[in-house]
Amino acid sequence: MSAATTAAGSACSPRTIQVELSANPYPVVIGEGVLARLGEQVRELGFKAGTKVLVVTNPDVDTHYGDVVLASLRTAGLAAEQLVIEAGEDQKTPATVALIHEAAFRQRLERGSLIVALGGGVVGDMAGFAAATWLRGIAVVQVPTTLLAMVDAAIGGKTGVNHPGGKNLIGAFHQPRLVLIDPATLATLPQREFRAGMAEVIKYGVIGDPELFSALEAAGDLSTIEAVGPALLQTLLERSAAAKARVVAADEREGGLRAILNYGHTLGHVVETLCGYGTFLHGEAVAIGMVAAGEIALAMGLWTPADQARQRALVVAAGLPQRWPDLDGAAVLACLQGDKKVRDGQVRFVLPTAIGSVEIRSDVSAETILAALERLP
Amino acid sequence: MSAATTAAGSACSPRTIQVELSANPYPVVIGEGVLARLGEQVRELGFKAGTKVLVVTNPDVDTHYGDVVLASLRTAGLAAEQLVIEAGEDQKTPATVALIHEAAFRQRLERGSLIVALGGGVVGDMAGFAAATWLRGIAVVQVPTTLLAMVDAAIGGKTGVNHPGGKNLIGAFHQPRLVLIDPATLATLPQREFRAGMAEVIKYGVIGDPELFSALEAAGDLSTIEAVGPALLQTLLERSAAAKARVVAADEREGGLRAILNYGHTLGHVVETLCGYGTFLHGEAVAIGMVAAGEIALAMGLWTPADQARQRALVVAAGLPQRWPDLDGAAVLACLQGDKKVRDGQVRFVLPTAIGSVEIRSDVSAETILAALERLP
Repeated sequence: MSAATTAAGSACSPRTIQVELSANPYPVVIGEGVLARLGEQVRELGFKAGTKVLVVTNPDVDTHYGDVVLASLRTAGLAAEQLVIEAGEDQKTPATVALIHEAAFRQRLERGSLIVALGGGVVGDMAGFAAATWLRGIAVVQVPTTLLAMVDAAIGGKTGVNHPGGKNLIGAFHQPRLVLIDPATLATLPQREFRAGMAEVIKYGVIGDPELFSALEAAGDLSTIEAVGPALLQTLLERSAAAKARVVAADEREGGLRAILNYGHTLGHVVETLCGYGTFLHGEAVAIGMVAAGEIALAMGLWTPADQARQRALVVAAGLPQRWPDLDGAAVLACLQGDKKVRDGQVRFVLPTAIGSVEIRSDVSAETILAALERLP
Repeated sequence: MSAATTAAGSACSPRTIQVELSANPYPVVIGEGVLARLGEQVRELGFKAGTKVLVVTNPDVDTHYGDVVLASLRTAGLAAEQLVIEAGEDQKTPATVALIHEAAFRQRLERGSLIVALGGGVVGDMAGFAAATWLRGIAVVQVPTTLLAMVDAAIGGKTGVNHPGGKNLIGAFHQPRLVLIDPATLATLPQREFRAGMAEVIKYGVIGDPELFSALEAAGDLSTIEAVGPALLQTLLERSAAAKARVVAADEREGGLRAILNYGHTLGHVVETLCGYGTFLHGEAVAIGMVAAGEIALAMGLWTPADQARQRALVVAAGLPQRWPDLDGAAVLACLQGDKKVRDGQVRFVLPTAIGSVEIRSDVSAETILAALERLP
């Protein structure tokens, strides 16, 4: 099982990356303007005319793209309705999922109906979870409109909401039937969120794609969509999606390999939790977490100061934070113990060994962790 | 894929029926006294000493069996804790699932941890759904203590809670790792609940097991556990579990064949919904629903008055209700449209064609339905 990239006819045509799951493979379609073709794409999946579709989105995204999406679905003969929800990280709760269920009930969604998640990671997680749990699971199509969701959250079937005790503690694995990525939607993304998404792109470079890492280094400035430019943007979307698809295909439910996608996330979650959700964007916390993981790898002799410097430089080039916040050591350790990535009480860290390669370690002592965090500038 | 029954050494040994799912097969163990061996059985699944186990149960079941279960788990080296919840049909809500999630959080359940559902169908549905949605899915073992849960709900991975608009609208498919059935726990089951469970046993007879149907007819009185006796009890538990296992193995997610298990349920749900949850027990509503489905089959010329009379006689022998309540026809039709078993707006009925055989029909007109219901005594 692997992810295959299908070459398109011309540079402007969308590219399709297949997520090769044995039970339920699905395509990731990436290209300028594909948003307006959502309806056709859904019909191509086999959904008949008249199928009920519930589009879940948030106010900002609705303003920019709601009409295009609804028109595309309706033109294709689908019975599309829309639900606009507030979708900040602090609204990512069971209560908001209940609102989606209410809309599903009002529209009388059936087992053959479809939910479309149009928006960032929070919309995707909640609409995906609502789909996973309505009538014991109905179809979902992910249409991410943030860089973070495009390169990470929308692919792989992780859905869920937060619990006061931690992020994403409540959720389900529920693979989408299609992921539709239109880079044009990034034009309206706030700069800070664009940068946060870039953290996950850098992650793919470090964990397995040195070529992507070098391409990012060559760009110099990664802090705005204009600086990145359309060609590199399409490339990094494709390479990130392909990387994610490969890992997901090899390990659908995070038994082993998929854990490498958590690079930067273990300590990133600590930062998010202890600083309070909302202080840092997820991608910003991941950037800090990657630099911190790099410091632990350095302390353990797993990788070199030069590679740590390259990683840090890329984080800086993307305009991302990399300073470890002033957190109480005991609180950090307690928070790590509450993290989902604990197995048999042991915290599992994804640590870099080179640009393009990581290792999973369960033998990182509390002393090593705290000393490395102390050492961070 | 089929269900295999493994013959045990002696009549008193438990029997094991395998649910032959390709991805995640699991055993159903049936026998007097197996409750006290839960700990060993869990260890045999591969759960190591020290594994965290959360036992979810309700006050009545806790009084009778809580200590035995906890002792068995702890003796086997498992770190077992217990949560007692109110588990009436009207507590089968997202709010109660949130209580289970709270307990999971307090106990710091990890991905390798286990939830044990000890009780009737409501406990099984909620504990199963909580397990399905904690950390995106942790293991669950079903230990049903009502006849209804033993022969139906505990096997097959359906989990969920009610929505004000209908039963089980919110839920997930989440197969257990083990189902442990101890007939001795039925000794403390209220008589009315025992009878309600018998409705599902009769269902297995009608949909595919004429031999079981005849065995039930031969018993004469099915209305109490004493009248049924231990030998027939073990037989009907085994045959029901085997029937359920066979159907589930052939159709894990209710794409086709599994729909036959809904025999009596489509109209049963209407009765439950329109009379208000709690007026009838689920099994009682199913009994009414089977007789009503039989009447529709009769009206369509699908089966004979003699078979309808045999079905009705067995329902009466089990002390179950069979009279259709006085419901508004328009409300019945509206409720059918809201049922999960609607596909493309068409209500799908499971209709009997003989004792031991059913058909799925989407061509039952509103007139036929209402006329048949009118005709019911």
